[in-house]
Amino acid sequence: MMNVVVWNENRHEKTNSAVSAIYPTGIHGAIAEFLQEEDIQVKTATLDEKDHGLTDDVLSETDVLVWWGHVAHDEVKDEVVEKVQQRVLDGMGLIVLHSGHFSKVFKKLMGTSCDLKWREAGEKERIWVVDPTHAITEGLGEYIELEQEEMYGEHFDIPTPDELVFVSWFEGGEVFRSGATFKRGRGKIFYFRPGHETYPTYYNKGVQRIIKNAVNWANTSNTPRHVYGNAQALEKITEK
Amino acid sequence: MMNVVVWNENRHEKTNSAVSAIYPTGIHGAIAEFLQEEDIQVKTATLDEKDHGLTDDVLSETDVLVWWGHVAHDEVKDEVVEKVQQRVLDGMGLIVLHSGHFSKVFKKLMGTSCDLKWREAGEKERIWVVDPTHAITEGLGEYIELEQEEMYGEHFDIPTPDELVFVSWFEGGEVFRSGATFKRGRGKIFYFRPGHETYPTYYNKGVQRIIKNAVNWANTSNTPRHVYGNAQALEKITEK
Amino acid sequence: MMNVVVWNENRHEKTNSAVSAIYPTGIHGAIAEFLQEEDIQVKTATLDEKDHGLTDDVLSETDVLVWWGHVAHDEVKDEVVEKVQQRVLDGMGLIVLHSGHFSKVFKKLMGTSCDLKWREAGEKERIWVVDPTHAITEGLGEYIELEQEEMYGEHFDIPTPDELVFVSWFEGGEVFRSGATFKRGRGKIFYFRPGHETYPTYYNKGVQRIIKNAVNWANTSNTPRHVYGNAQALEKITEK
Amino acid sequence: MMNVVVWNENRHEKTNSAVSAIYPTGIHGAIAEFLQEEDIQVKTATLDEKDHGLTDDVLSETDVLVWWGHVAHDEVKDEVVEKVQQRVLDGMGLIVLHSGHFSKVFKKLMGTSCDLKWREAGEKERIWVVDPTHAITEGLGEYIELEQEEMYGEHFDIPTPDELVFVSWFEGGEVFRSGATFKRGRGKIFYFRPGHETYPTYYNKGVQRIIKNAVNWANTSNTPRHVYGNAQALEKITEK
Repeated sequence: MMNVVVWNENRHEKTNSAVSAIYPTGIHGAIAEFLQEEDIQVKTATLDEKDHGLTDDVLSETDVLVWWGHVAHDEVKDEVVEKVQQRVLDGMGLIVLHSGHFSKVFKKLMGTSCDLKWREAGEKERIWVVDPTHAITEGLGEYIELEQEEMYGEHFDIPTPDELVFVSWFEGGEVFRSGATFKRGRGKIFYFRPGHETYPTYYNKGVQRIIKNAVNWANTSNTPRHVYGNAQALEKITEK
Repeated sequence: MMNVVVWNENRHEKTNSAVSAIYPTGIHGAIAEFLQEEDIQVKTATLDEKDHGLTDDVLSETDVLVWWGHVAHDEVKDEVVEKVQQRVLDGMGLIVLHSGHFSKVFKKLMGTSCDLKWREAGEKERIWVVDPTHAITEGLGEYIELEQEEMYGEHFDIPTPDELVFVSWFEGGEVFRSGATFKRGRGKIFYFRPGHETYPTYYNKGVQRIIKNAVNWANTSNTPRHVYGNAQALEKITEK
Repeated sequence: MMNVVVWNENRHEKTNSAVSAIYPTGIHGAIAEFLQEEDIQVKTATLDEKDHGLTDDVLSETDVLVWWGHVAHDEVKDEVVEKVQQRVLDGMGLIVLHSGHFSKVFKKLMGTSCDLKWREAGEKERIWVVDPTHAITEGLGEYIELEQEEMYGEHFDIPTPDELVFVSWFEGGEVFRSGATFKRGRGKIFYFRPGHETYPTYYNKGVQRIIKNAVNWANTSNTPRHVYGNAQALEKITEK
Repeated sequence: MMNVVVWNENRHEKTNSAVSAIYPTGIHGAIAEFLQEEDIQVKTATLDEKDHGLTDDVLSETDVLVWWGHVAHDEVKDEVVEKVQQRVLDGMGLIVLHSGHFSKVFKKLMGTSCDLKWREAGEKERIWVVDPTHAITEGLGEYIELEQEEMYGEHFDIPTPDELVFVSWFEGGEVFRSGATFKRGRGKIFYFRPGHETYPTYYNKGVQRIIKNAVNWANTSNTPRHVYGNAQALEKITEK
């Protein structure tokens, strides 16, 4: 059975009653709940726990990590960021949600600013499937509609995605590459745009389907472990 | 349970006793045999059957088609080629093996000449994993070694692969992109280089692992089915 | 100096006075005119000319071919289509505009249906740059706005583009991958979405800048010409 | 005229007479010399200069930076690394050579370990062109041969390249993705494998052609500069 850890900054929930009204058990709680409907072992971890809840033991047992952060990216300790990066390179899957685009973890794995346009205007978002072969789109229709969301607009300063799965249309006139995959080391990464804390986005069945699919897609196992460094020749080399 | 059809031209087996000695039930028979070890329903089809064994009924029930051909590509009827292409666009997986690079089916889906360098000299091939996150590499080590194979060398005139999974080293001095994936429509395609008819390549456990993995990887289901053509607006359009 | 041929079906211009009012010298005439502002030798060719104006001599001297077609795709002779495909594989650049997505030439090079959603409602299109490093975006701002255009919506049934350069937002609620590059053989291809015959799109300065940039980008020369077929070994092969 | 800075660690040249015998003006001197044959303004910079020769003024005027380092990656100051990264994101081209794969600059832009296999055995390397459309291959034949080089073997732990241009064959039995491009922000990056300090690799005409082509390819200018952050709506948003 797969082990998933849902990590959440969990700060808005403590200070903004509008957020805690929508997500009484936290954004992590809401995500953990629907993941548990699948054949998945789910734990949560939050910023204010010791080592942000991401001890060596927890990380080493995690197959896929889900990441939500926003106002406190800087409070995530660099040592933890490095351990998470290393685990991704060693094969742990990583699902980065919404404002997690600016997390230290995501920026370190991307190598770019990960900057974008944004607007909080409660506008409509329509998330179109552009890669219907992708496992992350299983069970979806042509698009998902979210009546109210924060806008994220291009240019999104990420490396060229390995796969572009979703593109968003926004009422205010922008577009966004809102579902994108990346491989780093032996790990698979999926960035998924929606999920502003003041909207009930993670209760949307389409959004839930996508995150479930993404967690399954990102879970790799038993893939080749390469040997690096000084290597003996496999064939005879002629002296010159 | 997944339905796989292994298609083989099955001509070398009829005219060359060296080939039929290696593959007494045909190349299709050998491939079908190891696929049956998995939880897969396997059938075979060959060139000289009616409609090459690929009737509408067979194709419509096939989740993944495996294709081996060499000396009789031109005898494959254009109507069948078009039906296979259409089924791939509709979501059927396709695994193209070795000399299938020059099949009508593969060339039609690629849009290029699919030409390459080749040499029959019984030389060593070492197939290196270059994408260790890929599901097709599960259970492999760093490389597979084939003591004797036909050489295929670059330039391989294919479109840029969606994913490059394997690169081959040849004793005679060439390299080849020997494992490559492509998406076409709702279907997933994997081209895999080795398998010359005069060598026992399809008995190699690594080669078998890769083809099993590829068949599983190419089997998509329940992905979005888009509507094409004239579309009603989803939002109000201002008259100008 | 580069040789460009602008090919146009040139049928709407003959039968629809609204179109000929916008494009009195034809869509090909309008495109040729702005390309001539650059250091480019420009010719035009149209469907009703002998060999559609694409004789062997013309094709062999063409560095980049621009293609616009719509209602008469089927009238383009298969021999000409095959010659154009071959020239692209041999290194000729190809710029496919708007309804050219359904041309025989483009479908043959893509291997897919190239189908899409469409609507003629005179709605607004905003074409966003998503790859600001690309030579095709030189001199542009963040986006181009077209007050009235035909809508093309996802899913666009093309192979994964080598590069995604533009994504369109439509007033009616759709998005579209409206600028995409593909490599086929030694040739470079750019598909660019806008240009419905009843709107003055090809007079838009941004659209003109993009097509000029694309023509320059697609013009390759002196790139490696590979040798295909039976090859001598470059290294000594040990007999087994 | 383009401004190129060739950066070299320049340590082997000071301590190893075999290296200084091959490169009397340093590796940077040899590279600068052949780049000056083109219409390029070339400067050099080395580790032991103030700010490693990469002051704000130098960086801000540099269109393309060439990077060679090996034994002293750790001595490159983090502030300089961050400035170089920022300049790449702002549009400066970057050509990373050979052992520069382990430089702080490259690892920061890639987000991976950039690890690989290696062996110093003076073996033969054959660098095959796998993308003959690419501007970096202009003027080359099918491959380049280097009689003696250090081996670098897969797995090369980099993100999926935007474009794979070259693949190397090594006498000792390995392959390597030896020419790969990446886009980061508004900047273009090319990694090119050969150039061990004890071999006269940078005097090879093919290697020189590739580096000249790469510098020209990486030089972007006047591409769109996006605005990030809080954005006004471009369309009217309906209050909900």
